[in-house]
Amino acid sequence: MKIHLKNFDILNSTSSSPIKGGSVIVRDNRIENIIPEDIRENSISADRTIQGDGRLLLPGFVNAHSHLGMTIFRGYADDIELDSWLNEWIWPAEENLTPEEVYWASLLGIVEAIHSGTTTIADMYFYMDQTARAIEETGIRGLISYGLIAEELDQAGREELQAGLDLAEDWDGKANGRIRVALSPHAPYTCGSSVLKKVSKMAERKGIPIHTHISETKREVEDSFEEFGVSPVERLESLGVLENEVLAAHCVHINNEDMEILEKNDVVVAHNPSSNMKLSSGAAPINELRNRGVNVLLGTDGPGTNNDLDAFGEMRQAAFLAKLKTNDPTALSAGDTLALATGEPVDQFGLLNLGRIKEGNRADLIGLTRDAPHWTPEYNTVSNLVYSGKVSDVDMMMVDGNMVMEEGNINGIDEEKIINKVNKIGKKYGKIKKEG
Amino acid sequence: MKIHLKNFDILNSTSSSPIKGGSVIVRDNRIENIIPEDIRENSISADRTIQGDGRLLLPGFVNAHSHLGMTIFRGYADDIELDSWLNEWIWPAEENLTPEEVYWASLLGIVEAIHSGTTTIADMYFYMDQTARAIEETGIRGLISYGLIAEELDQAGREELQAGLDLAEDWDGKANGRIRVALSPHAPYTCGSSVLKKVSKMAERKGIPIHTHISETKREVEDSFEEFGVSPVERLESLGVLENEVLAAHCVHINNEDMEILEKNDVVVAHNPSSNMKLSSGAAPINELRNRGVNVLLGTDGPGTNNDLDAFGEMRQAAFLAKLKTNDPTALSAGDTLALATGEPVDQFGLLNLGRIKEGNRADLIGLTRDAPHWTPEYNTVSNLVYSGKVSDVDMMMVDGNMVMEEGNINGIDEEKIINKVNKIGKKYGKIKKEG
Repeated sequence: MKIHLKNFDILNSTSSSPIKGGSVIVRDNRIENIIPEDIRENSISADRTIQGDGRLLLPGFVNAHSHLGMTIFRGYADDIELDSWLNEWIWPAEENLTPEEVYWASLLGIVEAIHSGTTTIADMYFYMDQTARAIEETGIRGLISYGLIAEELDQAGREELQAGLDLAEDWDGKANGRIRVALSPHAPYTCGSSVLKKVSKMAERKGIPIHTHISETKREVEDSFEEFGVSPVERLESLGVLENEVLAAHCVHINNEDMEILEKNDVVVAHNPSSNMKLSSGAAPINELRNRGVNVLLGTDGPGTNNDLDAFGEMRQAAFLAKLKTNDPTALSAGDTLALATGEPVDQFGLLNLGRIKEGNRADLIGLTRDAPHWTPEYNTVSNLVYSGKVSDVDMMMVDGNMVMEEGNINGIDEEKIINKVNKIGKKYGKIKKEG
Repeated sequence: MKIHLKNFDILNSTSSSPIKGGSVIVRDNRIENIIPEDIRENSISADRTIQGDGRLLLPGFVNAHSHLGMTIFRGYADDIELDSWLNEWIWPAEENLTPEEVYWASLLGIVEAIHSGTTTIADMYFYMDQTARAIEETGIRGLISYGLIAEELDQAGREELQAGLDLAEDWDGKANGRIRVALSPHAPYTCGSSVLKKVSKMAERKGIPIHTHISETKREVEDSFEEFGVSPVERLESLGVLENEVLAAHCVHINNEDMEILEKNDVVVAHNPSSNMKLSSGAAPINELRNRGVNVLLGTDGPGTNNDLDAFGEMRQAAFLAKLKTNDPTALSAGDTLALATGEPVDQFGLLNLGRIKEGNRADLIGLTRDAPHWTPEYNTVSNLVYSGKVSDVDMMMVDGNMVMEEGNINGIDEEKIINKVNKIGKKYGKIKKEG
């Protein structure tokens, strides 16, 4: 299959202006060629030509940390202390979740993410086979994992580990390689040291990455120092976990030693600025991490704490929060922020080597119209994209060489049906909330 | 003229759930009646019936601080230190601005603001008669003022003051009262004490409010202590300025004494979270101000420092920033944030007494669809509105009893023409930028 993407303004995060009116030739799931000028349609023998009409073409956004199943809990319990949010609201509600509900919630979340230009999602939750189904059906790319919680390697603990391994067995490499599986010890504070060691060994043996939460709140770091005498990052290093490919969500409360460890071990950090602000967790030292050469990607976290899956909102938030935190308006420029969101130049986790429109890269691309008032004038395309771009600008998506969205419509997806289904499921939890 | 708004879900910031499927009767420019259930169209003898089809109806958003003319400088100079931004970029560019350009830039900014549900804008800039024209033509409401800068009451200073008074003479009360005029000493650090005193007296004599910038940056506060021995707020109080109705933008760097003074003088604070973050100015103590009973409204600031006029982005930012700053996730709840954005319960400045859908209030209303994925599920309508609502949800607007936008189209406005005009003007400044 050969597709000719014709008359697009082609943008990478490395330059402020796009290549005007160029063509991209996609063969199967790879970018074969980039032609920096407009060419006649019949000069390329392609199976299909997509007319860009001057749309902006850029690498799809990577959402590096989410919990798609929690889309069912959007707005369920806001403006509440974290402890109460978990203990009184989310955990009791989660006990009622069924696999079918996680499927529909994941589907809704993915549809929302597609509209915001997200082509890859790193997702950790449970009933993840259902999320995998939703990823397969919608056509996006995913790094999925079962969030395992275990103090000991007793029977319950072994069952948790097995659930993670089963997911890898069933889904790693599926959907033409669009789905990869990670192992997810949920967090250092919810997993015992023997569990963390064992997970680490299994990940190494299977050659699959680890996706975990690290140092999201001040309290869990204080607890770690009290119980183990070291920070969560130091503890993970000493247990050998960081010898794997690790995607570490949050890293809000980390010190210089932690940053050195993250750098030394090539840990990739998933920064979730909106969720960290909404839960009053704090502001991760993203600028410092980047200056040290640590790879940072952008995540939304779950819709229970964000409350949406909007790559544009997250870019804006990341840039603004970095400028506030560092007291430096030059920190995390629009271009740097776009690099955070597209995954450039990450070349890890088997599937995240996207991030740039260049020959040989995977064809995960999005198209944006720029005819809304918020795009005018356009002195700097990247600036407009990051600081005033909106979900409503995205109307085209290709993932792995396949068209996922055209003219704002997601191929093969009945959005109304999904919305109705999730609204119906929401009624159940609305009732639980009232009675709870 | 009597309009029947039929089958809307009616929402005020004071409750988390709307009145389902109700009617609002508007006579001339006021809300005459609210009927909390669906009624037959012919049971009301109205000149016109607007079908809500279950849309959400809420008070229009108030943008309490903006510089619409600067829409031409969206993305012109980002990720730059404030000093350099002003001295090397914005001020040299502003010297080239023509009245015609401010007209088109204002028009574009207003169109963008209307799409985001903004019915009232408090705007300070120059060539404000052009912004007034744009407000009149688009049908929204504005509190406009000429930002005067003067060290002394010499001839230049008197001319500055006269420009502000001329605007009031020409425009106050115009457009059926939709336009009100304030006097704007730009800031305590750009106006000498004699000028501030004189402006204050003129405002009192004319019975018009004052709109100014106060304590946006740490440096201007330090400079004030050094030069005058007091904070900018204390200085304004001592000069009598705060005896007027005052709308004070920013108030980022204020201490306890300042807050007491603002409270005592019923100063209304315009909070601009995005701009304050982007310029690394800081986070205003909004929660503390509100706890003291100070009225706080939400502003976007100009598109040069935001970079858009998006009420939804600003609500989300205000709530998230308050939670981060106070280290308390319960701070500035979704309902509180909506109150900030709709102006409730402000009853000042002649035109800002909107904010609530209730009998007798001005008919400044917006309608939102809720069929996008980000609205599902809907446990708490206010939560979804503030934390996941988007510009693209707004498709209806009424201001002063007149329909301004229907099904996403702004009445009597050729958006494409405006966008083309501003893009053309942008080319001039793009060239200045390159040569500069």
